[in-house]
Amino acid sequence: MSEPEMRPRAEKLDAADELAGMRAQFVLDDTVYLDGNSLGALPRSVPGRVEDAVRRQWGSLRIRSWDESGWWTAPERIGDRIAPLVGAAPGQIVVGDSTSVNVFKAVVGAVRLAGGGSEGPGDGEGHAGRPGPGGRDEVLVDATTFPTDGYIAASAARLTGCTLRPVTPDEVPGALSERTAAVLLNHVDYRTGRLHDLPSLTASIHAAGAISIWDLCHSAGALPVGLDEHGVDLAVGCTYKYLNGGPGSPAYLYVREAHQPRFDSPLPGWNSHADPFGMTPDYTPAPGALRGRVGTPDILSMLALEAALEVWDDVSIDAVRTKSLALTDFFLECVESYVPGGAVESLTPSPHTQRGSQVALRCADAGNVMRRLIDRGVIGDFREPDVLRFGFTPLYVGFGDVERAARVLGEMF
Amino acid sequence: MSEPEMRPRAEKLDAADELAGMRAQFVLDDTVYLDGNSLGALPRSVPGRVEDAVRRQWGSLRIRSWDESGWWTAPERIGDRIAPLVGAAPGQIVVGDSTSVNVFKAVVGAVRLAGGGSEGPGDGEGHAGRPGPGGRDEVLVDATTFPTDGYIAASAARLTGCTLRPVTPDEVPGALSERTAAVLLNHVDYRTGRLHDLPSLTASIHAAGAISIWDLCHSAGALPVGLDEHGVDLAVGCTYKYLNGGPGSPAYLYVREAHQPRFDSPLPGWNSHADPFGMTPDYTPAPGALRGRVGTPDILSMLALEAALEVWDDVSIDAVRTKSLALTDFFLECVESYVPGGAVESLTPSPHTQRGSQVALRCADAGNVMRRLIDRGVIGDFREPDVLRFGFTPLYVGFGDVERAARVLGEMF
Repeated sequence: MSEPEMRPRAEKLDAADELAGMRAQFVLDDTVYLDGNSLGALPRSVPGRVEDAVRRQWGSLRIRSWDESGWWTAPERIGDRIAPLVGAAPGQIVVGDSTSVNVFKAVVGAVRLAGGGSEGPGDGEGHAGRPGPGGRDEVLVDATTFPTDGYIAASAARLTGCTLRPVTPDEVPGALSERTAAVLLNHVDYRTGRLHDLPSLTASIHAAGAISIWDLCHSAGALPVGLDEHGVDLAVGCTYKYLNGGPGSPAYLYVREAHQPRFDSPLPGWNSHADPFGMTPDYTPAPGALRGRVGTPDILSMLALEAALEVWDDVSIDAVRTKSLALTDFFLECVESYVPGGAVESLTPSPHTQRGSQVALRCADAGNVMRRLIDRGVIGDFREPDVLRFGFTPLYVGFGDVERAARVLGEMF
Repeated sequence: MSEPEMRPRAEKLDAADELAGMRAQFVLDDTVYLDGNSLGALPRSVPGRVEDAVRRQWGSLRIRSWDESGWWTAPERIGDRIAPLVGAAPGQIVVGDSTSVNVFKAVVGAVRLAGGGSEGPGDGEGHAGRPGPGGRDEVLVDATTFPTDGYIAASAARLTGCTLRPVTPDEVPGALSERTAAVLLNHVDYRTGRLHDLPSLTASIHAAGAISIWDLCHSAGALPVGLDEHGVDLAVGCTYKYLNGGPGSPAYLYVREAHQPRFDSPLPGWNSHADPFGMTPDYTPAPGALRGRVGTPDILSMLALEAALEVWDDVSIDAVRTKSLALTDFFLECVESYVPGGAVESLTPSPHTQRGSQVALRCADAGNVMRRLIDRGVIGDFREPDVLRFGFTPLYVGFGDVERAARVLGEMF
């Protein structure tokens, strides 16, 4: 098929798109922005709220804002706002720190929940997590995952006396054993866009008596996650991709309610204390998700994120998923139509059950191709060594954008 | 002495104050803001810069800003801007994460630099820090310090197989031994405002073969620190007090240049990798201070901080210290004049060599007294159980403010 056939189809799909109106809530221009899986576009609700946070809350109220502007409770309040997007009941998510720091909390916390590891003597008296010989001393990590997860998991394993064992998600069921303390997996692979089977993998992990940790960076806000429903133990995610929280906006940590009383954070900062202003020398963790907090929350970035999350007020994540699949289906079809055979190869699985909200195309000279695409107003990104990544944010990407992106890509060859 | 005598003195001191003009660079009102040791006032340079970061850098340039707006290099660039304020040459400070998270990096990093601890088996192959028996297995922490330092140091000790030993700073020289791996001290006590003797304590720590870590939260921006000059090994600090970076603005980590090649962070996120966009499964730390980075930097808060630091362009930290001591001296004198004998008792040492930039007064019913002071436009804060804290930020507090604060305090009794 060709342009005269694909363009009218795009128009028809856009006309029927029930999320089409959402685009007006974002600041966009005449480029096709397919990099929302790296940095989401700016929601129109954000600038005014940030200005208020700076000028009035900080500038005029100053220290009073910790109470009066709700700064102190922002991590859990904003966590509760993210919760429905990832299928979590309130009281299980706190926002703060980077994804990497939250991965560290989660992996160390998971080893301790599993009664695993062999932390050295010292200040551990009275804590859980000092197993006898033959205990759980292995952490499995998705070897294909975003590298920081592997680096941080290696550090967490080293510090808890565990061995880190890199595996692919497909290998997880076979690698699980009575030695497995925790398994860290990425819900959607950052490179290929492959969606992993969270319900089934979580069930396997539980059958082996281990603790599951899911990294939701590339799925939250793009598809239903179902943390509570599928029994996920711990999860982390960033907020600057499909949640549009802004550059480096704070990440979040989910601790399943049933685990909260035993969740033993390796970063027990004063913000996670049961009585933070008691300033007592002894540490007593706060109840609930609050024990995932660490230090003073980064208020300007937090409040930008809170404003950004308002766009979700009237949006169902199921509708987002439906549109996401339609967008990636249509993109793959347009690529097939416009791009000369053999010039690109999709790394993203075809089955919907295995696809996130991005398409990764392998292509010769991909770095240069992406630079030329960007010059032509089609913004994706390049990942070493030969991958073009295109992210599809259903809230602001339309089918006309998809058709144009594929058409311009076809003109590169 | 009384009001007719103190007010003209305040006027005279204000007239002679070479930093008096700095006040115009901050957003202030007709209150006396003596809480800059908790949250610094808003510098006028900040709102426009934050607006530009949101609307243009994020809103229009989006992902391109990681390069074009200098987002990626912000942690080390802003670190270099803080460096002269704490007596550090460039290339030793990175900004990011909370103070608590940086304390964790520093304490674990220090134990490893000392060749101490007994981390379990696992992924530690090839790393330093696996001592034989009889090695350095003790971490000393200032028992009077801000509690988060103690909580986090306890966690770091537990994870590295060390014992945490709380001591007062005065007890440190006597407590040091060949078992000491690291010592974490607060430069200025958050509660009493006592300044500890950094040069002498650092020398004692070194004489014992241990690693020094200084928490500069209550000294940076208020007095000279001299990190390089005094041979400090590692340091951390927040930026929202005397550096006026905004609520929860990112903290920083100083790693002395000589230690950088062996600094082995417990939080080796992808931002600290030698080739972060290589996305390789193996971790290779970046050279220099960059290995103190962790995850994606929190850009909006970072850029607010960067703008806030511009006020220091033409200010010498020695001039700030001179004014700070004059302010606290004058405050103590005014309190003596205005407050009925016995109503308050200063917890802050009299000798200049032992005083930070705050005055802490013990007082009956201090919580209520502080509420009434705030109602009268004198903003300090209350710390359990009976302490009124008054912070003096030399950049925007004048001698007239000091006189008024003491006078209103006197009217409380």
